[in-house]
Amino acid sequence: MKGIQDYYPDHFAQCYGCGRLNEHGHQIKTFWDGEGTLTRFVPKEYHTAIPGFVYGGLLASLIDCHGTGSAALALAKDQGIELSDTNAPRCVTASLQVKYLKPTPIGGELEIKGKIKEIGKRKVIVEAELYANGVLCVVGEVISVLVPDNFGL
Amino acid sequence: MKGIQDYYPDHFAQCYGCGRLNEHGHQIKTFWDGEGTLTRFVPKEYHTAIPGFVYGGLLASLIDCHGTGSAALALAKDQGIELSDTNAPRCVTASLQVKYLKPTPIGGELEIKGKIKEIGKRKVIVEAELYANGVLCVVGEVISVLVPDNFGL
Repeated sequence: MKGIQDYYPDHFAQCYGCGRLNEHGHQIKTFWDGEGTLTRFVPKEYHTAIPGFVYGGLLASLIDCHGTGSAALALAKDQGIELSDTNAPRCVTASLQVKYLKPTPIGGELEIKGKIKEIGKRKVIVEAELYANGVLCVVGEVISVLVPDNFGL
Repeated sequence: MKGIQDYYPDHFAQCYGCGRLNEHGHQIKTFWDGEGTLTRFVPKEYHTAIPGFVYGGLLASLIDCHGTGSAALALAKDQGIELSDTNAPRCVTASLQVKYLKPTPIGGELEIKGKIKEIGKRKVIVEAELYANGVLCVVGEVISVLVPDNFGL
């Protein structure tokens, strides 16, 4: 299944977190799941914090990129933008808040679920919940803003 | 110069962000710089967001680990703990807030400066500022809590 990140033009697909063209990065993919959004990710063994648990900085990164991906999906839907390889909104993060409710066990797939809390013309607020084995471990909120198509060129 | 992370016992030194024993990780080092704390880091070329700028998830990770390192330094100072290879406080992050004031240019050393905003027996709040080429690009706040010595064993 294609994620929103598969539609970003090449110069927007270099991100360490979500760029399909960044061979060193996480290459996450975010898509609609009912009314919400979903990203799945399996941390590597070395993405550890205290042994047995996932590194909090990685969890923050996942929530960050899940937030911008969810925001792009929401803007496309809201503005009736038809996604194609050369036409997808691209957002960056203005602010990120992460609360670690409990240590996130390492060794399986994580699910990050998103809910669009607020949407404007250029700004989207996404609430995120991160689950390990069905248990809610981390919550977050991401404020994303749309960037111009030629940003960084 | 030794960072607080050089004093963590081995099982607390595995963290992808700051563990000296994690060969895949960032291995950051945090130390006192006058009244505040300091961490320096040079992102790799592939730690990109939009081309030309550093990936926000990495910046959040750096602020996260700088926060726990600063908290450990502050607790050691406050409680008169003499640092040694088997005796250093170790904190984890309870919550993390990051505001991206402007895109952080890639290609040089970043400085993350910390200020101890509040300190209790187990909880420390650290304010962080991240600079690239002397320009303030990101601010953050980290709430860290002390973990028991045997956590994760």
